[in-house]
Amino acid sequence: MVKASFGIVLVEPRYDGNVGSVARIMKNFGFRNLVLVNPPEIGPEGRKNAMHALDIVQSAKRVKSFEEAAGMFDFIVGTTAKCGGDANHLRTPVFPEELSKALETDGKIGIAFGREDYGLLNEEIDKCDVLVTIPADRDYPTLNVAQSVAIILYGLSMDRNRATAGGKKFREVGKTEREYLLRFYDDLIDATYKQKFEADLAKRTFRQIVGRAFISGREAKTLMGVFRHAKARIDKAGSL
Amino acid sequence: MVKASFGIVLVEPRYDGNVGSVARIMKNFGFRNLVLVNPPEIGPEGRKNAMHALDIVQSAKRVKSFEEAAGMFDFIVGTTAKCGGDANHLRTPVFPEELSKALETDGKIGIAFGREDYGLLNEEIDKCDVLVTIPADRDYPTLNVAQSVAIILYGLSMDRNRATAGGKKFREVGKTEREYLLRFYDDLIDATYKQKFEADLAKRTFRQIVGRAFISGREAKTLMGVFRHAKARIDKAGSL
Repeated sequence: MVKASFGIVLVEPRYDGNVGSVARIMKNFGFRNLVLVNPPEIGPEGRKNAMHALDIVQSAKRVKSFEEAAGMFDFIVGTTAKCGGDANHLRTPVFPEELSKALETDGKIGIAFGREDYGLLNEEIDKCDVLVTIPADRDYPTLNVAQSVAIILYGLSMDRNRATAGGKKFREVGKTEREYLLRFYDDLIDATYKQKFEADLAKRTFRQIVGRAFISGREAKTLMGVFRHAKARIDKAGSL
Repeated sequence: MVKASFGIVLVEPRYDGNVGSVARIMKNFGFRNLVLVNPPEIGPEGRKNAMHALDIVQSAKRVKSFEEAAGMFDFIVGTTAKCGGDANHLRTPVFPEELSKALETDGKIGIAFGREDYGLLNEEIDKCDVLVTIPADRDYPTLNVAQSVAIILYGLSMDRNRATAGGKKFREVGKTEREYLLRFYDDLIDATYKQKFEADLAKRTFRQIVGRAFISGREAKTLMGVFRHAKARIDKAGSL
């Protein structure tokens, strides 16, 4: 099943009640794979909110760091309330209903939700392949974490019906191919730009686009070829 | 404004915590009009969950019956977990994302959510003008009431928020920039590949990725720079 490849990652949740609520909404939408980074102990509040989804809380994988959680998936989706755009276009997020493109893949996708107060840290955000945001009111844009999970899982589920009804081909996501693609692209950038600032911007922009597009293994291979060949031609011109 | 004409009706909620959570998600999406039918007293749990939306709880209208609440609106939308259809085809519900289309009116619209355990009673359902349901997993279809409110308000807000997130468009898709990007990319490809087949595949692949990624004007400019510079370096190596 497509949905079997999705996991929810809660990064350092403070309140067990939220963990319980997240487990319940996951079960409501047929998702089962929960990963908890340094969770609190699950007490009465957590059990009460989980209702009939206590099994999801109990079978959740406990890990010690964001990196450990991220390592369990081919793609990591980060959630953020901060709609950048102006200051930092490198963090341009997609909307929940756009995220459902991920359903056309058969990779393992983790969706990470940050702390109740701080969200995800910048260095965690940097490690995400794609960001998603729930557009909310300017005066009070911070949703409760379980509410965010509800809306994002709903967004994902919306397209699931459409996708399966349409009988679309699934795009195969190759984590390895993608990593090679980014490496070849970076090599090309390093051969092209002298300024570190320009090079970094170019690298991060491409990462974002590749992440948002949920690139397939075959597509990655094609672009890999482009960057490898372009780099080879540049090398013929001699070093910078 | 569309949102000014919407109200949320909670019918005999048992837990003040849920009332607080509903108020918070309402404020997150810019809705303010809350009607409570025979609510519990709002204690610490309700205040905690409301966070910065306590004003919505405090200004909520308290009424004694569903009829009294329904009388405050031109239309009443009922929410139900039971996707009927079989027993009573007249009561076939719409999905949250269809609701805004179903409600193309400028009347005052109330969306009613039932009790935590029973939902809306049949005689209340009968008084609703339209029903909405959240499609959920068969094994555990009963969402927490605040989660239901979150998803339905998100469904209502989707179109509106797409245009303006936080008051501004945050991913401006520049058609012109995108066309230039593809042109610079194509130039690089033509400078890189001798084989037409390879070049065509490389061009088509990149087009698809750019399309899927909803690339912004600024991102396009960054990548444009990459391809332009890479091409310039190749040109230094002489023609193919």
